[in-house]
Amino acid sequence: MEKLWFKSDYQEGACPEILKRFTETAFEPLSGYGTDIYCKSAGEKIKKAIGCENAQVKFICGGTQTNQLVISSMLKSYEGVVAAQTGHIAAHEAGAIEYSGHKVLTLPQHEGKILCEELSSLLEKFWNDDSHDHMVYPGMVYISHPTEFGTLYTKEELTKISAVCREYKIPLYLDGARLAYGLMSEEAELDIKTIAELCDVFYIGGTKVGALCGEAVVFTNNNMPCEFVPQIKQRGALMAKGWVLGLQFDTLFTDDLYYRLGAHAIEMANLLKEGLVKKGYTLYADSPTNQQFVIITNEKRDELCEKAVFENWEKFENGTTAVRFVTSWATKRENVEKLLELL
Amino acid sequence: MEKLWFKSDYQEGACPEILKRFTETAFEPLSGYGTDIYCKSAGEKIKKAIGCENAQVKFICGGTQTNQLVISSMLKSYEGVVAAQTGHIAAHEAGAIEYSGHKVLTLPQHEGKILCEELSSLLEKFWNDDSHDHMVYPGMVYISHPTEFGTLYTKEELTKISAVCREYKIPLYLDGARLAYGLMSEEAELDIKTIAELCDVFYIGGTKVGALCGEAVVFTNNNMPCEFVPQIKQRGALMAKGWVLGLQFDTLFTDDLYYRLGAHAIEMANLLKEGLVKKGYTLYADSPTNQQFVIITNEKRDELCEKAVFENWEKFENGTTAVRFVTSWATKRENVEKLLELL
Amino acid sequence: MEKLWFKSDYQEGACPEILKRFTETAFEPLSGYGTDIYCKSAGEKIKKAIGCENAQVKFICGGTQTNQLVISSMLKSYEGVVAAQTGHIAAHEAGAIEYSGHKVLTLPQHEGKILCEELSSLLEKFWNDDSHDHMVYPGMVYISHPTEFGTLYTKEELTKISAVCREYKIPLYLDGARLAYGLMSEEAELDIKTIAELCDVFYIGGTKVGALCGEAVVFTNNNMPCEFVPQIKQRGALMAKGWVLGLQFDTLFTDDLYYRLGAHAIEMANLLKEGLVKKGYTLYADSPTNQQFVIITNEKRDELCEKAVFENWEKFENGTTAVRFVTSWATKRENVEKLLELL
Amino acid sequence: MEKLWFKSDYQEGACPEILKRFTETAFEPLSGYGTDIYCKSAGEKIKKAIGCENAQVKFICGGTQTNQLVISSMLKSYEGVVAAQTGHIAAHEAGAIEYSGHKVLTLPQHEGKILCEELSSLLEKFWNDDSHDHMVYPGMVYISHPTEFGTLYTKEELTKISAVCREYKIPLYLDGARLAYGLMSEEAELDIKTIAELCDVFYIGGTKVGALCGEAVVFTNNNMPCEFVPQIKQRGALMAKGWVLGLQFDTLFTDDLYYRLGAHAIEMANLLKEGLVKKGYTLYADSPTNQQFVIITNEKRDELCEKAVFENWEKFENGTTAVRFVTSWATKRENVEKLLELL
Repeated sequence: MEKLWFKSDYQEGACPEILKRFTETAFEPLSGYGTDIYCKSAGEKIKKAIGCENAQVKFICGGTQTNQLVISSMLKSYEGVVAAQTGHIAAHEAGAIEYSGHKVLTLPQHEGKILCEELSSLLEKFWNDDSHDHMVYPGMVYISHPTEFGTLYTKEELTKISAVCREYKIPLYLDGARLAYGLMSEEAELDIKTIAELCDVFYIGGTKVGALCGEAVVFTNNNMPCEFVPQIKQRGALMAKGWVLGLQFDTLFTDDLYYRLGAHAIEMANLLKEGLVKKGYTLYADSPTNQQFVIITNEKRDELCEKAVFENWEKFENGTTAVRFVTSWATKRENVEKLLELL
Repeated sequence: MEKLWFKSDYQEGACPEILKRFTETAFEPLSGYGTDIYCKSAGEKIKKAIGCENAQVKFICGGTQTNQLVISSMLKSYEGVVAAQTGHIAAHEAGAIEYSGHKVLTLPQHEGKILCEELSSLLEKFWNDDSHDHMVYPGMVYISHPTEFGTLYTKEELTKISAVCREYKIPLYLDGARLAYGLMSEEAELDIKTIAELCDVFYIGGTKVGALCGEAVVFTNNNMPCEFVPQIKQRGALMAKGWVLGLQFDTLFTDDLYYRLGAHAIEMANLLKEGLVKKGYTLYADSPTNQQFVIITNEKRDELCEKAVFENWEKFENGTTAVRFVTSWATKRENVEKLLELL
Repeated sequence: MEKLWFKSDYQEGACPEILKRFTETAFEPLSGYGTDIYCKSAGEKIKKAIGCENAQVKFICGGTQTNQLVISSMLKSYEGVVAAQTGHIAAHEAGAIEYSGHKVLTLPQHEGKILCEELSSLLEKFWNDDSHDHMVYPGMVYISHPTEFGTLYTKEELTKISAVCREYKIPLYLDGARLAYGLMSEEAELDIKTIAELCDVFYIGGTKVGALCGEAVVFTNNNMPCEFVPQIKQRGALMAKGWVLGLQFDTLFTDDLYYRLGAHAIEMANLLKEGLVKKGYTLYADSPTNQQFVIITNEKRDELCEKAVFENWEKFENGTTAVRFVTSWATKRENVEKLLELL
Repeated sequence: MEKLWFKSDYQEGACPEILKRFTETAFEPLSGYGTDIYCKSAGEKIKKAIGCENAQVKFICGGTQTNQLVISSMLKSYEGVVAAQTGHIAAHEAGAIEYSGHKVLTLPQHEGKILCEELSSLLEKFWNDDSHDHMVYPGMVYISHPTEFGTLYTKEELTKISAVCREYKIPLYLDGARLAYGLMSEEAELDIKTIAELCDVFYIGGTKVGALCGEAVVFTNNNMPCEFVPQIKQRGALMAKGWVLGLQFDTLFTDDLYYRLGAHAIEMANLLKEGLVKKGYTLYADSPTNQQFVIITNEKRDELCEKAVFENWEKFENGTTAVRFVTSWATKRENVEKLLELL
């Protein structure tokens, strides 16, 4: 029997709708570097979806690249970016932000989220410090939504964080690598329009939501850094065949495909979560999105390893392990059921 | 009537063989970040094709990114890379090499190529200069093959350049963005095995030869920089779905597809070149590959603009312009014929 | 009455011995960029003082510059440096390490020191993490001695930290901006030879110990990065008149001047500390070196501000403040006595 | 007999006036990092000397550091700096500009100078190029005055270059490492006020004009980059004892000392030049400042090497060498006469 894969939301290829359009357009000549009709059309659809006429949209191949580009092009040389200590840029991007010359200023994480009060206190402390000329200026705030723990900011939380950023005149950046799964969660308080309203820049993840690759960066209010295209090029992030990204997002934002893919993953995740709870398992984090974390004994884990592929998240001293199961647009219901049987 | 596109070799999507495999594998779960079976298989096929058991192969999304990564990971901080003044890294990558902290040390270009004698003289002069501690150390040599002018190094030329690099113990790096078109040219003296033998690192271009995106970097003799994966990640160049690149190269290196795609473009280019010569046009550069440069009057150029898409290469004071027509794996014979009719 | 200055150990100019030699040599022609006889002589004296024949010594103008240079030239691009969260490079160098492309990986501080156990655990955890290719490699350990709190590592502590570094084959770097004051403390367990033995690289601070400017970087065992001079130049840190630094260190390491300057500051600090304790003040940190931290009421602090210059270190909610008084080679006994009278 | 040194203008220490003030102020406590009274006073004197009320002045330790700081803090990330191919930043700073991420865009040199017409043409060509998003934006112009060949810009030349810069809205930066020698040349057309008027930023060299170290950076019209102090710190260029620089410039700009030092060197250079011409030597470049270049036979050169220290500038195939003799504030008349005797 083949193994059951629940390792990540980027373990399968692209959704059929996208592959179909690649086939249809294979011999259609297009202008390079993101100047084509599909990038334009995708940008328009996204602007409509988020309700911002003044938004500017660019497509980038991957998430770390997007974070590096957005952060380094928006910060001044003496500024750093504030993030949770578990934020992707702080923990799992091999120092990509520092490689671009900037410090990640960390805040404690609370199920992957930062607290408005702690952010506010960091900023206040910095500006009250007489020697802040010798310190890194906090020049931007980074959050991920859903977070690395699958959790979501509430509307109140994001509103307050946004207000602090605006008070201190620093941009708020939301990493939406898994945005579809955050938007379609039953517990979601934030729709994409509200996110666009409260953030200065965010990205809509494609790689983890049915695209071969690609993230759509959205500057929400005419605030794209000047001469952004040479800045993309300079970082090696300008694709010759830019439409490879544009065409995918054009597809994702046609007929609500992006949301439908998100909804499917959430349905599968809920099925899994309910099954786990029913079986009496303890959840490691109470995630309302497509990443589910559960604590199992090491024996169970080893046994399961034979038949399923998943992530070991954290090992505890008492002989148990928190493991992560991830659903996606590609997850099959029968595989969730089989996984529950195995557990 | 639709316009005839001869603007570039990255104006169309992906070849059918590649799209077919994307469709076949869409729901196949795979491990991330280039650790999958297709990257492995593609690497093995490339190693076999180039005849190097000790080669190491990695797949990167685009050309500028590849150049930035290879050069910055192989140079020491105080070293620069030697290139022709018209080399892609010197002229058309928005300063991506300098962004990574390194200078491009330029040599004069001779139809896009560097001369072994001038390289040798630059190196000798540097090492004989008493104040070379105040200068940028030449730490690598970059050439493109075919060059930006469509020209090719002869076997003797590359052998001599390689010998100089080995004498000075600095790596020779060949940018093969259009390698297929260089290999299949009727005037080609260099096959891929000889290139692998004479160079320390080179890349096999996919973006311009039928892939959606992707370049295969080959370190020819166990000389990949240590901890290369975190270095890729740190530059934002590690794709989550690494097999998107691996699968494409696995296809390109199956049943000689890469060479067949190259041969088609060359056939189309030759058809065009012969037609141009027959009609009495003056060639701007005598290119044996898929880029053809021809001098036309400005009137002709403006007229042609209405019906075809091509690149204005250089404008002259005497009322003429050098224009570039590019063929590729996707060029149709009838379109070449139509273009010749228009000229 | 003039104010009493206890603000820092870099508030006065240079000691008379140094100024005398500047005057004596003003018209002596010398070769540039550190190739002069005084740099050579100073280097020899330092090598003798530390008992390392294989040491290599270079002189750099300032502390942040030295840290940036040493760390960025010794780390590989994908590596970061481990430091206490209160370490100078982590907190007070305006992101100079990140500017050079590297992350500072922080450990908790214990009166300014890192614990061997916590270092060991960080390294073990990194190497056991399956996804460490996505993380910053710990490539060096940075400690300051005395620390930013005036505290000192014991011989056992440094020996254990050194052993961990050697086990993991990463260099141990000691920032000795105030080294003289650490060496001459009554509680000092570490002499300069032991430091040289246990560390791979360290710097002997001049700026805070009687020089106009200058720090002596010591690579203890033929481990200076290759082509170090162009690396210094490239970072803007190579002084044309290199002997300005060499001559000062040549003076400091003649007739034990460096130690005598250190001893004087310690004597003054002890006088102050004893006076404070006698008067019943609570010390904020128990520093055995030239920085003394004491908690006073805010009224006292405001009153004292009129007559003395010192640093506010930390404000507490209960109406008190920790303040810092610093002695140096230039501190006059009568001023310490006057300060005690004011308190 | 001791050798006659004419190797550089940074081969001796500091002028007596400066050393005297170091001695007088050695025990005067001062606030750190350039916030002291001497930096303030020196800045005021310089502002008065250049006739710019809106100027902002900062003191930096050395020339390469100053160039790196000024250029990297004024350029946007995607911009490069235009310079003569023999400009110090292009040729002799070990890639310090590229280390900071920016390309040096070179123009041909004409006795060390750039031509306004060639600058204008470079800028026009860039902005007319359809693909300039793939190129490095010219964001600043760098000139040295005197140049590396001792030559001077005429008033007309600088006025025209300045006009081009203002037309294209990019700053003009003048490297005045040897400014005093340019100002006091008999052929000087440019006084310091005119330079301040025509340039956006320039530096007044101290290291080569009697200081131990130090350059005064002048932003001529309230155009200092925002948060410049943390930017200085971040690059390791903020001296703790900032007054070491301020005090020296305060001295240099008291009683016209800076100009008097310059005038002396020029007098000595003229004496030497006239002597050389009288003896029938061919000058390599016709320098009106303190660097003199003359062509001598290799036999003469080897003979002279025994008794004098000077720079070999360029070796020719016909058995001759261009050598450089440099005078300075410290050059003694008798040594010039002895040198002429030897020649």
